[in-house]
Amino acid sequence: MSTADVQVDLAAYASEVAEAARIASRGLATATGGQKNLWLRRSAELIRQNSEQVLEANGRDVAAAPGYGLSAAAIDRLKLTPARIAAAARALEEIALLPDPIGEIIEGSVRPNGLAISRIRVPLGVVFFIYESRPNVTVDAAAICVKSGNSVILRGGKEAFHSNQALYALLRDALEDAGLPAEAVQLVETTDRAAVGHFLGLHEKINVAIPRGGKSLIERVAAEATMPVIKHYDGICHVYVERSADLEMARSIVVNAKCQRPGVCNAAECLLVDREIATTFLPLAGRELASRGVELRCCDESRALLPGSRAASEDDYRTEYLDLVLSVKVVDGLEQAIEHIETYGSHHTDAIVTSDLVAAQRFIAGVDSAAVLVNASTRFNDGGEFGLGAEIGISTDKFHARGPCGLRELTSYKWVVQGTGQIKE
Amino acid sequence: MSTADVQVDLAAYASEVAEAARIASRGLATATGGQKNLWLRRSAELIRQNSEQVLEANGRDVAAAPGYGLSAAAIDRLKLTPARIAAAARALEEIALLPDPIGEIIEGSVRPNGLAISRIRVPLGVVFFIYESRPNVTVDAAAICVKSGNSVILRGGKEAFHSNQALYALLRDALEDAGLPAEAVQLVETTDRAAVGHFLGLHEKINVAIPRGGKSLIERVAAEATMPVIKHYDGICHVYVERSADLEMARSIVVNAKCQRPGVCNAAECLLVDREIATTFLPLAGRELASRGVELRCCDESRALLPGSRAASEDDYRTEYLDLVLSVKVVDGLEQAIEHIETYGSHHTDAIVTSDLVAAQRFIAGVDSAAVLVNASTRFNDGGEFGLGAEIGISTDKFHARGPCGLRELTSYKWVVQGTGQIKE
Repeated sequence: MSTADVQVDLAAYASEVAEAARIASRGLATATGGQKNLWLRRSAELIRQNSEQVLEANGRDVAAAPGYGLSAAAIDRLKLTPARIAAAARALEEIALLPDPIGEIIEGSVRPNGLAISRIRVPLGVVFFIYESRPNVTVDAAAICVKSGNSVILRGGKEAFHSNQALYALLRDALEDAGLPAEAVQLVETTDRAAVGHFLGLHEKINVAIPRGGKSLIERVAAEATMPVIKHYDGICHVYVERSADLEMARSIVVNAKCQRPGVCNAAECLLVDREIATTFLPLAGRELASRGVELRCCDESRALLPGSRAASEDDYRTEYLDLVLSVKVVDGLEQAIEHIETYGSHHTDAIVTSDLVAAQRFIAGVDSAAVLVNASTRFNDGGEFGLGAEIGISTDKFHARGPCGLRELTSYKWVVQGTGQIKE
Repeated sequence: MSTADVQVDLAAYASEVAEAARIASRGLATATGGQKNLWLRRSAELIRQNSEQVLEANGRDVAAAPGYGLSAAAIDRLKLTPARIAAAARALEEIALLPDPIGEIIEGSVRPNGLAISRIRVPLGVVFFIYESRPNVTVDAAAICVKSGNSVILRGGKEAFHSNQALYALLRDALEDAGLPAEAVQLVETTDRAAVGHFLGLHEKINVAIPRGGKSLIERVAAEATMPVIKHYDGICHVYVERSADLEMARSIVVNAKCQRPGVCNAAECLLVDREIATTFLPLAGRELASRGVELRCCDESRALLPGSRAASEDDYRTEYLDLVLSVKVVDGLEQAIEHIETYGSHHTDAIVTSDLVAAQRFIAGVDSAAVLVNASTRFNDGGEFGLGAEIGISTDKFHARGPCGLRELTSYKWVVQGTGQIKE
């Protein structure tokens, strides 16, 4: 086939898949919570029963991975083990235990003319989910979408193709067992990158696109998508140690925020310290950070207090290291800290350590981030920690959903009006 | 200047205005409700005191309107009168009486580790509002944006340029009187259409674009905007008269939904009638619709029952007439009615008239529209009727906001986490 033919075929294929998803979404929107939970539990059961088969498929992906140029870390994320398969099955059962968001009456009132107005939670419709090569994400994403009443089109990384196919076959069998539409979950059957572009053009059939992966993937999806996108960009997260802070608490929070898992979005990338306590606090925190192998990139003032540190460039303060590297800056006080965070941060997750009530209130009001923490590690900005039960991503947008996105963040609402013959005067 | 120079200037101008709005939005986000209400009341006062001046400016616009090719109806919408100015001032005072949405604790809980988590309502930030030539909308939009803590960039139609300038000068004076940032409200000073494109590219400074006007304006904004857009597309609204309906109630609702104000989005465009009652109901309703000058476009079956009607084309069922024209179709029953609405409708506003509880429940669940009404006229889908107090538009999207958009729909939230030194294990 010529390239033009392939493009026509891909366009037709994307349109068919999306149309099937749209039709399935109508059935799914009125499915009961019981049916959706049956699907979740049946999927868990099938995954356990067929784990050998899934491992075999995954083995083929892992064997091919070096050919795709995957790093050792990426291969580790690609690899399934009996324990990881068991965890995926357990996650399905945990999602079955969450309350069904659909049908929730968000609010209701009776108007002076007697009309009873309510706002009722409904699914968004069809989710297009694009992700990198982690097969367990296939299971998680399908579970969150279906539980929230949405049909989902899964587009996994090509390096996980066989693993995803094996898991998808089981999820699909379980749909039938639960009496849900077979196209409620679909896996894109081609690894051609151009297919993604065709899906992103189908805003009449797909209600939201969710990319999960590196910045370039998210930028591409945001640029090409004709439907709304839930985006997850950088986390340039700060810990500000205010002058009244309990310094031992501050040390423990800074070390945790940087070191507990440095490669994730809610790890701290910059430490701001009040000048008044800098000479006491920085050597204390610096010793422990150094002992944990953290490289410190400092302003002139903090550098003088931290032996072995290097000078920070302007760019360093705008960098998400995702590594054992931390920018450090001494500030005049609260207002300068807020100003720094608003100028250099990414509005993701920022913390203050303080024992001053007024300072805490001002920080909460002045920092425009998805999560603002007082006396706690930035690492807590997470759907599980916030009690959402499951999460499909963390939104760095302010529109629709901000921060961790669980079941409710994949919903919309409708206005239901019940009258007794009212007409407008 | 060359065209290229003008473009560079427009780009720089848009960027400056948006940056000023962004900075102002930070001040506005932490302004008290008292300050915002003071601005609303002071604006009302200034508009009343300076109504002569506003009328004079408006007179210049009205005089120039035929030169712009404005229709008589458009000139009527452009024209201000003492009564319309008084109404605009009163609207400001009514918005001052609404509760402040900002700072509302949407939900809160304490996690097992003692972290107190709350979700707090905050402004979106900066609104870019693009609208046609109705000067009172300048006042309304500014009021809704500022009350919800957002700064706003107003881009009105060129035909209302002088009226908007006169009103804007007063709104701006009032900002100073209330101690709010002067750039919380800005009016785009150029009528060059290309300026809009530059603003729509500034997603880092502008949080949402809201176009209000014809379909071509909305399509242009949706296509060019790099930030989220609250869109208001067609209202192809249905009234379905189910077999158990009180036929007198049904007649009254159908006539009201079509005739009370046929040129608006929530007016009915299609009547669906259950076959079982068609021979009784259609002649009854048809007589009154005909007496009110409504042209009926019918399926074969309904046409036989409605003397003087004409045949509907497939396209008629997909048309928002915004006029005294109504499509009519006889259906087998509830499921076919839902199917028709889902196929031909625009997911805006749809009503059932019935006395059957099961039919009402099924219609509410099966129709995927922003507003679904039982035994009430479609004309009630409106922010005022729903108790929102004020509305900046009606969203036909499912993402972020659906249906009437009031103050809350212009907000986001932040997660606030208060701890006592918690770190992640």
